[in-house]
Amino acid sequence: MIKVSVLYPNKEGSRFDMTYYCYTHIPLVRRLLGPALKGVSVEQGVGGQVPGSPAPYLAMGHLLFESVEAFQAAFGPQAQAILSDVPNYTNTQLVVQISEVKL
Amino acid sequence: MIKVSVLYPNKEGSRFDMTYYCYTHIPLVRRLLGPALKGVSVEQGVGGQVPGSPAPYLAMGHLLFESVEAFQAAFGPQAQAILSDVPNYTNTQLVVQISEVKL
Repeated sequence: MIKVSVLYPNKEGSRFDMTYYCYTHIPLVRRLLGPALKGVSVEQGVGGQVPGSPAPYLAMGHLLFESVEAFQAAFGPQAQAILSDVPNYTNTQLVVQISEVKL
Repeated sequence: MIKVSVLYPNKEGSRFDMTYYCYTHIPLVRRLLGPALKGVSVEQGVGGQVPGSPAPYLAMGHLLFESVEAFQAAFGPQAQAILSDVPNYTNTQLVVQISEVKL
């Protein structure tokens, strides 16, 4: 199983609309990617390593797929529709990581 | 539910021993944190946004707790024992994010 993590850096002037993300963007992603998308999780940053320090990321979204190939086959044709919705909820420069799930 | 994510940046000269992490470090963390730890997931970075680009992080470990207070109460007394094991599997400067699980 692979996990595609999209991380939204917490920098000065950054905004992230969690309500839009959870209730408009993620449903759009689910609809466009269909059954290739095996799971979704979403987190909102609340802090960093030292108590009281800011979270490195405003939010993280994680999408599960069977394989890199399954992700690319599902995402490629929908990339433009999905990415064009991003400015509706954030002005951050997103960081994308593709990972293999080990545990 | 909150998630404590530990991210290991992928920089030149960085090393991360996934076998040690999964089979020695994570079991140590489970044993020391006890029932406060509600779940663990581990991922190994395989790529970035552009196909063929490097993963931003060599690995990510995610630990679930009921609340920030539950995490701090469990982790605080064990912090030294857990953190002193880190050099056994990585030389990276780890990034810690505490998040609230939204979806």
